[in-house]
Amino acid sequence: MTQPPTDTQNETGIIHRVTRYKPHRSWRTWLIGHPMTTADAPHQTVSKVVGLAVFGADALSSIAYAPQEMLVILATGGTRAFGYAFPISLVIVALLAIVAISYQQTIHAYPNGGGAYTVARDNLGVLAAQAAGAALLTDYILLAAVAVSSGVAQIVSAYPALFPYRVLLAVGLLVFIAVANLRGVKESGATFSAPTYFFLVMTLLVVGVGFFRYLAGTLGGVVAPPPMNVAHGAQPVTLFLLLRAFSNGTTALTGVECISNGVTAFKEPRTRNAAQTMLWMSAILGVSFLGITYLLGVIGAVPSEEETVISQLARTAFGSRGLLYLGTIAATTIILILATNTAFAGFPNLGAVMAQDGFTPRQFAYRGSRLVFSYGIIALTAIASLLITIFRASVTALIPLWAVGVFLSFTLSQAGMARHWWRAGRAARASGTRGEPGWRWKLVVNGVGAVCTAIVTLVFAITKFRDGAWIITLLLPALVAGFFAVHHHYLNLAHDLSLENYGSPPRARRHRVIMPVSGIHRGTLEALDYARSLSPDVTAVHISIDPAQAEEVRRVWTEWGDGVRLVIVESPYRAFLEPFLEYVDGVCAQCQANERVTIVVPQFVPQRWWHSLLHTQTAFWLRFALLFRRGIVITEVPYQVD
Amino acid sequence: MTQPPTDTQNETGIIHRVTRYKPHRSWRTWLIGHPMTTADAPHQTVSKVVGLAVFGADALSSIAYAPQEMLVILATGGTRAFGYAFPISLVIVALLAIVAISYQQTIHAYPNGGGAYTVARDNLGVLAAQAAGAALLTDYILLAAVAVSSGVAQIVSAYPALFPYRVLLAVGLLVFIAVANLRGVKESGATFSAPTYFFLVMTLLVVGVGFFRYLAGTLGGVVAPPPMNVAHGAQPVTLFLLLRAFSNGTTALTGVECISNGVTAFKEPRTRNAAQTMLWMSAILGVSFLGITYLLGVIGAVPSEEETVISQLARTAFGSRGLLYLGTIAATTIILILATNTAFAGFPNLGAVMAQDGFTPRQFAYRGSRLVFSYGIIALTAIASLLITIFRASVTALIPLWAVGVFLSFTLSQAGMARHWWRAGRAARASGTRGEPGWRWKLVVNGVGAVCTAIVTLVFAITKFRDGAWIITLLLPALVAGFFAVHHHYLNLAHDLSLENYGSPPRARRHRVIMPVSGIHRGTLEALDYARSLSPDVTAVHISIDPAQAEEVRRVWTEWGDGVRLVIVESPYRAFLEPFLEYVDGVCAQCQANERVTIVVPQFVPQRWWHSLLHTQTAFWLRFALLFRRGIVITEVPYQVD
Repeated sequence: MTQPPTDTQNETGIIHRVTRYKPHRSWRTWLIGHPMTTADAPHQTVSKVVGLAVFGADALSSIAYAPQEMLVILATGGTRAFGYAFPISLVIVALLAIVAISYQQTIHAYPNGGGAYTVARDNLGVLAAQAAGAALLTDYILLAAVAVSSGVAQIVSAYPALFPYRVLLAVGLLVFIAVANLRGVKESGATFSAPTYFFLVMTLLVVGVGFFRYLAGTLGGVVAPPPMNVAHGAQPVTLFLLLRAFSNGTTALTGVECISNGVTAFKEPRTRNAAQTMLWMSAILGVSFLGITYLLGVIGAVPSEEETVISQLARTAFGSRGLLYLGTIAATTIILILATNTAFAGFPNLGAVMAQDGFTPRQFAYRGSRLVFSYGIIALTAIASLLITIFRASVTALIPLWAVGVFLSFTLSQAGMARHWWRAGRAARASGTRGEPGWRWKLVVNGVGAVCTAIVTLVFAITKFRDGAWIITLLLPALVAGFFAVHHHYLNLAHDLSLENYGSPPRARRHRVIMPVSGIHRGTLEALDYARSLSPDVTAVHISIDPAQAEEVRRVWTEWGDGVRLVIVESPYRAFLEPFLEYVDGVCAQCQANERVTIVVPQFVPQRWWHSLLHTQTAFWLRFALLFRRGIVITEVPYQVD
Repeated sequence: MTQPPTDTQNETGIIHRVTRYKPHRSWRTWLIGHPMTTADAPHQTVSKVVGLAVFGADALSSIAYAPQEMLVILATGGTRAFGYAFPISLVIVALLAIVAISYQQTIHAYPNGGGAYTVARDNLGVLAAQAAGAALLTDYILLAAVAVSSGVAQIVSAYPALFPYRVLLAVGLLVFIAVANLRGVKESGATFSAPTYFFLVMTLLVVGVGFFRYLAGTLGGVVAPPPMNVAHGAQPVTLFLLLRAFSNGTTALTGVECISNGVTAFKEPRTRNAAQTMLWMSAILGVSFLGITYLLGVIGAVPSEEETVISQLARTAFGSRGLLYLGTIAATTIILILATNTAFAGFPNLGAVMAQDGFTPRQFAYRGSRLVFSYGIIALTAIASLLITIFRASVTALIPLWAVGVFLSFTLSQAGMARHWWRAGRAARASGTRGEPGWRWKLVVNGVGAVCTAIVTLVFAITKFRDGAWIITLLLPALVAGFFAVHHHYLNLAHDLSLENYGSPPRARRHRVIMPVSGIHRGTLEALDYARSLSPDVTAVHISIDPAQAEEVRRVWTEWGDGVRLVIVESPYRAFLEPFLEYVDGVCAQCQANERVTIVVPQFVPQRWWHSLLHTQTAFWLRFALLFRRGIVITEVPYQVD
């Protein structure tokens, strides 16, 4: 398995050993594949056609839930309110256009990838960057939870018998995607192109056939509509209600930023290719969203947990639950799973970038055996699974938690870009040059983008506050505070452990050794021998629960203890740990700065795993209890029977 | 909290320190009460009246489920088969008489308490004793599961809305009883007498009123009977069916042996008092059982998971769901909870006795801070909860697992007693004396008891085999094998660790120290200082995941490593543990018998608990990985920031 090591030793006593260690096959190999060396990291670029599939899947998939969630809110105003769906959609598509144009400029200004975190960090400072980081991390978690829940909702629409198992299905799918990502999914053409274009074809087919039959006058209403899912009972149609519907509809914009994060993955000229792909994607998204919303109004689709409106539209447009219907459902489900995968790409990467900046636990920056950021993948899976379980895989219940983070990151990104142009312009003026051509215009574009998305953030936070957005308005500041606490810890630690201005390590003067003794046998004597090799100052401590046993220990120690001091502590309440710790504390209280205390614990090593159940795990509990005490060294001396 | 220690030192350097350590208040104090010293162990004796309550609750409570479970089986033969219930009851009461008379003799022969385990151990040898132990332990577990399930069935009968929560209720009750027992329940008059006699009064009242109205001709059938719970669909009334109904009915005998286990608790003359109490209890049990079974036939009660037959009988006899009805249900529920408590008294005690004999893990013999055998209580709670959850708190589903163990322990106990008299007689004949008067007659009584209970054991095992008794017929031999494996382990260990024929501990000649180094900082240097104090032979090992970092480590080590050997192992797959373990294995492979290897791990000690989440727990994982390796000492040198 391992190459014979080749050692090179230099004159300073340092041996450089090259062993290309390769793990043996195990269940991990089977589950996530053979390990890959750091040099194996793949690097490939994608064309515009493939790029649209890889980075567009997330955004395009939102037409699977955004229209439905808009209708869920309108339903509380009665079916009459459904008429507002199309006008609201027009506003949303206008917003989409503004955001898309804004991001065009980010792509050109950040050819190495300009996520909201990077842009905010470069232009708005560390606080804004951490706010963007918090917003994006929650965004990814909710994307995973919503997309997989929506995917399961599609499956349940086609196979209603699966309705009771939707939470299980959703968590199962999530774990499946997580395992695939732990193996290291290549975001390549093969994985993404076929399903994304299949989805585009099916969506255009549904919309096309729907409009054709609508114009031909043969498109009827939904046959046997499912029971309506009304969020709050009948309410009058107020501006507030319309704003809430609008808020839900803005989830159509989620994922629009993906292309600007992934500019590096495009073939050269990469900024131009990425920008064009973004335009195409936004156009397709806008048209599909408008078309579907309009047709939903025509057929009188009903928002329901039991059948998605996409399913209702497909079976009404195609006139049956035939092959085309199943194709549409399958395509929608698959693109939602691809969207989930986007979260699995984004969350671990952002977590790693933030870990390198020292704001998240540094484990997030460790690459696993397959070169992926395993901690991030596992954290995402765990939290998203929890959300899915708590909210019973209901998209409607999850949506209010989502879009605040999305639009906050949009706002910070656009504000950062606006600041970028402002600085560029001021720098140009200061140096007397003209600077970047048209920076004033670009400042206006990003400025408008920032203002619009800021307004949407506020609208969303206010209108959805009671439905769950309050959780996010509490969570985001808490996360930012947490990031700074982590940062503070790492900085402190680095400072305190630094070798700068460090003369030489303090040599310990006196070394006291304490050894707990429960009974005296060969294992104890071996541990005693070890303890005496550490220091001449050894004390054996017997915690006495049974006076007869204490007498026996005293007798045998006189014979075998070789003159080592034995302290017997009576414990009438039969506690072992507490009196021992109290004794240790007493010794430590008398210690001076350069004195050292080592506890030598004789530990039984089982021959078979179940043997360890037959022994009190003193060493384990002692270690656990002493975890937070300072300056005490714990040594476990194993003993075993042959 | 702690008294000032008083030290006495003798000339051999042994210090005897008396600290009456008393734990501080914590959540444990709140939950299970203040600790008690070993000298606090209560000792009190009970009168016959109280003894009947304390030791009879278990046996008497069985009339809450035995008649119902008999009817469940008969129901498969159609309502016509219900007519067999009373004749079967007569056979069961005859069996009860035989067992009660047999146990009379055990009481007189074992005035210090003669449980089946003790009797089998003394008279039939270690294998029979372990079989009895296995049978009794499973018996106690099933007693707890059945009694608490039956108690919940009574509650559900009175409050049908609670039906969906019966598993939760049952587990909750069990945990409540477990906590009470961890506090240390005194099996005293106050706890047991009132509820037991309340139950007796209510039972006699139900039976009395029932018979009075029956004779007066005013007792009708059950109004609105619950849906019948038929186990296997309609079947012809065969001998096999009747034997199965008989088997279920024999659960009425469970708990009869309790008094013979608890002879020591009775006031003097204790054997006479215990024997008389046993007679009274058997008589009350027999009469109530016959009366209830007869009346159930008269009113046409229907066995059901949703309402117990006791509930049906009570509301029919009293004519309404009034106060008397609720009193009966409450009394029945409470006595079932007391019966559960019997399991909590029996299981931990037997577990402790067997642990002292070295057949169960010795933790079972440890007394907790409240003097109870905490491990036994927790084990019983866990296993019984699991059974309740698996079998959905259904008494009908649990019964087939139960009585094999009960009757096996009866059989072993009676056979042991028969052997006891046989030996006594033989010894008397050998010495030419008359011996114990009437030993022949006693031999016959216990012999008949043994044969009868053996037949019932077989009948039960065969007729209920497919319903679940097969689990027990597999489990009991497995348990016995497990007990012997545990015994074997302890014997081996004691032999191998024994100091007999042990010259002197082998002094280690060479001591190698290995220290993993990830980065070089003040913590590393302190650990290095410690490592060098152990031995001159120290090797630092850096597992290199990043070549740049390896270069940095090499550079800093040249300055700060003080000439200690550094080995750099390249790990291109970014694994840390495996290459390090491989290195350690390589070193150990070259070790001689009297060489010693210590691994010194610098370990970060967090200031706040959440800081530990920000660091890889290398020491922890290393310790876990090295757990089963022999002869390697692990030392954790803590470092922390101030």
